[in-house]
Amino acid sequence: MLSDVATRLAEIVGEQQVLTGDQISADYAGDEALTVPGQQPRFLARPGTAEEVAALLVAAAEHGVPVTARGSGTGLSGAARPRPDGLLVSFERMNAVLEVDTENHVAVVQPGVTLSELDARTAEAGLNYTVYPGEMSASVGGNVGANAGGMRAVKYGVTRHNVLGLQAALPTGELIRTGGKLTKISTGYDLTQLVIGSEGTLALATEVIVKLYPRPAHGVTVLAPFEDLNQVLAVVPRIISSGLAPHILEYIDNLTMAAMTYAADLRLGVPDEVRDASGAYLVVGLENRTAALLDGDVELLGTLLGDLGAAEVYVLEGNAARTLIEAREKAFWTAKSIGADDVIDVVVPRSEMAEFLASTRELALKAESGVLGCGHAGDGNVHLAVFQKDPDKRRALLHEIFAEGMAVGGAISGEHGIGNAKRDHFVELEDPAKLELLRRIKQAFDPAGILNPGVLLD
Amino acid sequence: MLSDVATRLAEIVGEQQVLTGDQISADYAGDEALTVPGQQPRFLARPGTAEEVAALLVAAAEHGVPVTARGSGTGLSGAARPRPDGLLVSFERMNAVLEVDTENHVAVVQPGVTLSELDARTAEAGLNYTVYPGEMSASVGGNVGANAGGMRAVKYGVTRHNVLGLQAALPTGELIRTGGKLTKISTGYDLTQLVIGSEGTLALATEVIVKLYPRPAHGVTVLAPFEDLNQVLAVVPRIISSGLAPHILEYIDNLTMAAMTYAADLRLGVPDEVRDASGAYLVVGLENRTAALLDGDVELLGTLLGDLGAAEVYVLEGNAARTLIEAREKAFWTAKSIGADDVIDVVVPRSEMAEFLASTRELALKAESGVLGCGHAGDGNVHLAVFQKDPDKRRALLHEIFAEGMAVGGAISGEHGIGNAKRDHFVELEDPAKLELLRRIKQAFDPAGILNPGVLLD
Ligand SMILES: Cc1cc2nc3c(=O)[nH]c(=O)nc-3n(C[C@H](O)[C@H](O)[C@H](O)COP(=O)(O)OP(=O)(O)OC[C@H]3O[C@@H](n4cnc5c(N)ncnc54)[C@H](O)[C@@H]3O)c2cc1C
Ligand SMILES: Cc1cc2nc3c(=O)[nH]c(=O)nc-3n(C[C@H](O)[C@H](O)[C@H](O)COP(=O)(O)OP(=O)(O)OC[C@H]3O[C@@H](n4cnc5c(N)ncnc54)[C@H](O)[C@@H]3O)c2cc1C
Repeated sequence: MLSDVATRLAEIVGEQQVLTGDQISADYAGDEALTVPGQQPRFLARPGTAEEVAALLVAAAEHGVPVTARGSGTGLSGAARPRPDGLLVSFERMNAVLEVDTENHVAVVQPGVTLSELDARTAEAGLNYTVYPGEMSASVGGNVGANAGGMRAVKYGVTRHNVLGLQAALPTGELIRTGGKLTKISTGYDLTQLVIGSEGTLALATEVIVKLYPRPAHGVTVLAPFEDLNQVLAVVPRIISSGLAPHILEYIDNLTMAAMTYAADLRLGVPDEVRDASGAYLVVGLENRTAALLDGDVELLGTLLGDLGAAEVYVLEGNAARTLIEAREKAFWTAKSIGADDVIDVVVPRSEMAEFLASTRELALKAESGVLGCGHAGDGNVHLAVFQKDPDKRRALLHEIFAEGMAVGGAISGEHGIGNAKRDHFVELEDPAKLELLRRIKQAFDPAGILNPGVLLD
Repeated sequence: MLSDVATRLAEIVGEQQVLTGDQISADYAGDEALTVPGQQPRFLARPGTAEEVAALLVAAAEHGVPVTARGSGTGLSGAARPRPDGLLVSFERMNAVLEVDTENHVAVVQPGVTLSELDARTAEAGLNYTVYPGEMSASVGGNVGANAGGMRAVKYGVTRHNVLGLQAALPTGELIRTGGKLTKISTGYDLTQLVIGSEGTLALATEVIVKLYPRPAHGVTVLAPFEDLNQVLAVVPRIISSGLAPHILEYIDNLTMAAMTYAADLRLGVPDEVRDASGAYLVVGLENRTAALLDGDVELLGTLLGDLGAAEVYVLEGNAARTLIEAREKAFWTAKSIGADDVIDVVVPRSEMAEFLASTRELALKAESGVLGCGHAGDGNVHLAVFQKDPDKRRALLHEIFAEGMAVGGAISGEHGIGNAKRDHFVELEDPAKLELLRRIKQAFDPAGILNPGVLLD
């Protein structure tokens, strides 16, 4: 039976590209989610073309084999964790940048391309794929699966806003194209948007058309310590109203900043007495097309921050700026290294962030647990490192935190997704009528239920 | 039977709010699509609450009555044209701005609110709902149904990019909430985006959360005549690469400009000899937070346009700017008044516009028909007035134009939608595998098939 299926898969992608059992490296057993233990798949296939992907899905459906798609396995929801009886489709060989189109400002890529590769290729053309989820080894297909965000979303939006079209293999075996090199379209239901964020449960992207922006020539990073987090968060809408359009707008609480600077051996030039009096930090990225225009922006921002209570305003350029942003991007590893038991990314209305964070601290206190973190302040996206070794207590605490986030008008995840890690919370907390509708949509795409079963929905 | 249903509807919304037969004014018979003849519905209901909308859908499903939603009936695809045996649900009474939230930069509105009402309310707060589809009597619910665009989409995107959440009544009778006061979310399939652009066939929006932007304090409109349309279109990517971020980027061919200036008695100060030598015009809108910054932008734009072959560069402010933009917004009425038999809005990759427009002129010539127009150059969205009285010949010509648009990577409609007007073309030209998937999605939402049957899909 096993060898039947393996033979069939080998006929599709070639013998070299099918591995089974112990041949499969442990790297393929999951993603970076802290709470989802790895799982070896029964089969690993590495297709080279869209047609092969479609054929793999047909074969899987015939044999009743569940299929999980894998980009680079850097996801934080456990959505790329394969099933023990399943087929893992790795897009590592479909990793070409097919076109950087400077007239339409789009790139056409295969899903397995990494963000660093795409970044290098678009940079040559002075253009930019602006989804930076903090992990440049991630793939564009993984961005699509998770609807990844990152620091620049406050200006450029998340994956959803930067993918214009797809070629996708349906679990029923057809290859379709959605969208195009088009920034808008009102011609039928938006399948592009439906596949984005579906965590590999509806269709597999075999080609992606992404939007590119001009790379502004000049940029700085501004760091401002404040007495407490509430002050930081109160500044956010003011900056957005000012018309400055920052491309980075992050908050970092002081414990997280301490861990980050320690881990990255970061010297920000913040004097001891300022640091000791600071409960939280705001990080603002500004960019413009000339140095003079950027100077004007920085001046306006400096005045605004001063008026709103910043203890100091540090303007970082070049290396210092880069190091701070990289340390922020590595906050997940930092959290992991100091023993965080989970990292979550609840999203709430911007205006609710302060109160929501206060509630999470209270809930954590009651549960004898710890929460700390940083987040995309401009988007209301709170990244919380959770410290609680006991799985049941942690589960109960997360449930309360998610429920609280939803109660103030938010959602369980802003950009990491639900995956395996948060599925039970999602199914317990979401409106049953909506869940039923999601299940019917899943069924419309995947009548045989082969794509990533157990992810998102049960 | 008729009175049975009417009684049931009256129980839901009140007797005053149900009309039947001749009581229903002819205004409700359709929208502004030139080729979709009006049709009186059997019933008209004007609900006042979301719960009433949901109850109407339950009643309609029980009695097998098809339901069409109506905002302001300004759509251009015939999608708000009711069925003779059907119920028209008019959102005219659900027209409140529930909240303008200056901290989260969103407004929460009922679907029947008009764009002019919302514009006035957001202006008070210095904020802006940036979807301007050229007809300010249109409703936000109608924007959602059509995924409306308009001139500012080049900077701010279309409805899809400016709606963050919905309350929606499902044809199965439940009220659900999607999204929220959140700019991003990775928590289940994106139902908000799926309902947007579904032309009233999947669910009815009963509340809409829209994104607001700060209103830049300073703006101008720049008009540049060029020798021919190809020159105009070649300028577009250059402007976008410059980092200027125009909020308007339109082309207008010379015949359309002649008709527009005539209809609006518009005096642009273009001397006769320039006008006579100009085959097409580019209109660029710029805005910034200070007059000095705006001046810098205008200077850069002027240099760019001069270098790229503009015969002149006219910087319009205040009244002159407003009049030109209004004339452009009324281009549809102008086309209608000079006898256009249809107006379509194919979208193609920006780089394909020139060639696509040349093809449409050739196709029209062969079909002894005329095509002219203007369009959202920044978006590749070509609005064509089509002159051909014979319906069969016109149908054949449109088919060829749509096929040509799709062949160069475009789609039948960029922002007006498919509706009744273009359904047959859509169903004939679209990939059958994709159509099947759309039908299954429709079925997942609307198992009884009551919502706007015949629109989009057959
Ligand atoms: C240090 C660190 C920092 C991070 N910071 C952020 C952050 O700030 N913001 C953020 O959003 N994320 C962040 N992430 C998460 C992660 O990088 C992103 O989610 C990324 O998009 C995952 O890409 P991947 O290729 O690794 O996807 P994988 O983990 O391989 O897969 C992710 C999902 O996509 C599906 N998938 C993969 N390929 C396809 C395809 N071709 N078609 C359809 N579905 C597919 C998978 O089945 C899975 O459901 C971070 C991760 C790390 C390790
Ligand atoms: C002069 C003129 C210029 C125009 N210019 C443009 C332009 O530049 N760009 C552009 O995109 N459009 C343009 N339009 C078209 C039109 O204004 C827009 O499509 C607008 O969004 C329609 O809004 P409405 O309220 O009139 O919708 P309606 O015509 O009443 O309905 C439109 C669709 O939405 C559905 N609908 C209505 N309410 C709801 C609801 N609550 N929930 C779900 N579905 C609903 C209807 O069933 C229908 O399918 C123009 C129209 C005119 C007359």
